[in-house]
Amino acid sequence: MRLKVAIQGIKGSNHHQVAREYFDDDTELLECMSFDALVESLLNGTADKGVMAIENSIAGSIIPNYNLIYHNKLHVIGEHYLHINHNLMVLKGSAIADLSEVRSHPMALLQCKEFFRNYPQIKLVEDADTAEPAKRIQEEQLAHVAAIAPQVAAELYGLDIVAPNIQTIQNNATRFIIVQTKNKLVAQMDEKFSEDGVNKASVRFITDHKRGSLAAMLNVMSDCNLNLTKIQSLPIIETPWKYAFFVDITFEGFANFEKAKSLLNIMSEDFKVLGEYKNARL
Amino acid sequence: MRLKVAIQGIKGSNHHQVAREYFDDDTELLECMSFDALVESLLNGTADKGVMAIENSIAGSIIPNYNLIYHNKLHVIGEHYLHINHNLMVLKGSAIADLSEVRSHPMALLQCKEFFRNYPQIKLVEDADTAEPAKRIQEEQLAHVAAIAPQVAAELYGLDIVAPNIQTIQNNATRFIIVQTKNKLVAQMDEKFSEDGVNKASVRFITDHKRGSLAAMLNVMSDCNLNLTKIQSLPIIETPWKYAFFVDITFEGFANFEKAKSLLNIMSEDFKVLGEYKNARL
Repeated sequence: MRLKVAIQGIKGSNHHQVAREYFDDDTELLECMSFDALVESLLNGTADKGVMAIENSIAGSIIPNYNLIYHNKLHVIGEHYLHINHNLMVLKGSAIADLSEVRSHPMALLQCKEFFRNYPQIKLVEDADTAEPAKRIQEEQLAHVAAIAPQVAAELYGLDIVAPNIQTIQNNATRFIIVQTKNKLVAQMDEKFSEDGVNKASVRFITDHKRGSLAAMLNVMSDCNLNLTKIQSLPIIETPWKYAFFVDITFEGFANFEKAKSLLNIMSEDFKVLGEYKNARL
Repeated sequence: MRLKVAIQGIKGSNHHQVAREYFDDDTELLECMSFDALVESLLNGTADKGVMAIENSIAGSIIPNYNLIYHNKLHVIGEHYLHINHNLMVLKGSAIADLSEVRSHPMALLQCKEFFRNYPQIKLVEDADTAEPAKRIQEEQLAHVAAIAPQVAAELYGLDIVAPNIQTIQNNATRFIIVQTKNKLVAQMDEKFSEDGVNKASVRFITDHKRGSLAAMLNVMSDCNLNLTKIQSLPIIETPWKYAFFVDITFEGFANFEKAKSLLNIMSEDFKVLGEYKNARL
């Protein structure tokens, strides 16, 4: 049976690109129109694994996705960094001068807005996805509309790239995570879970507003030879002055992480490991 | 001369609501269609102060705004918390059953999507702002379109609220900051800057990826009796393995903060105080 992978957006999106790079070719893609729908497909078993954007070097974390993972008890089993290239693509035969409108995901528009300063006649219109407008341009033969999308979208939907890499900041990596339900994980673990290669973890914990409580947690991590690669505080909506922290850590020996876990678990409230996986960063 | 306050969005938006609550009534509002335009109005002197959403208890920080403040050397001079109520508003005479579309800011749509599960015939359409669709419904007499906007928008544009407070999470506070240019600040400081009442600061600094470097910074803060209310790491795009941290701290004595500043400045790179102001949280 082929692996079913849920992606956010349709084929031709950056999520599709990540699925292609992370998994073998022999997967079946499930297109989800929102991150909620993606999570739902994992929970109800329609998909085996999901690909989810989680942070961007420009805009920071996608906090709602952290909360989706936490609240639905999903498990992070891997990560993948995609170098995002935004390409301006049009119907074959169209040119930039013909355009009155460009459609894409709000983040893509934001990252390319400098490019469009020279084209004030082109209106930037937010869409739910990058690939979706590309598909629509072909289907509806829209000669005056462009999409900003990954190259794979131009290939799939037969569009011409009239301006490649139009993002202002060239060094634009987005981090994606691969998630699945805990049930699937347990079933797999019996067969083949191994600490081999596991050198990164994502954790969430709560501290009260006592002075130094976060510093104490970080001291333990440092003492156990863990490196922090990300930290993000988030107020607990229902309880003022309590904070949840989403922290990513890398480590060399799994034993170090095990030791830190025991300590951190005692020192904080609701300490949860969201995933233990292989660091994909070079 | 009346104080000129730049807001993101048009009158009737949450930014307008904050300007009303934070400043005296006798201010002139400058409507800006983006946060970039707002910053520009401060830099070129069109506006004296600006109101900027900076974090939301649901979606987290608005990182691009942190970067705007830092890169344009703006100074945070105050903060304000607004309890966000999303109201569904329509043309007088329309009812929910008449609606085919609801328009609002993507964040407002996200926060109300549970409500619309019961109305699958209503399409959710992203707009640049909350108040703008409200205004347009009145101007163009759109009987089948609703807006999700603050109450002030219904008042200003003569719409009926058919469903108040439709957000899923009721306890939804957004933090806004008040910013101005450093030049204005220096001019004012000569007259009247005082440490009185200043008990919160926003700082930004860079650490290298040496183990424990962030823990060391937090230890100093704790030793100097500072409380951390927010922390956010952000990779430095150009330099892998270097991280910028945006940190908010509260304190009781300004001298404690002064002492911490001297130490933190030595221990990190590019330590910058983005603002020293009065904590608005009860």
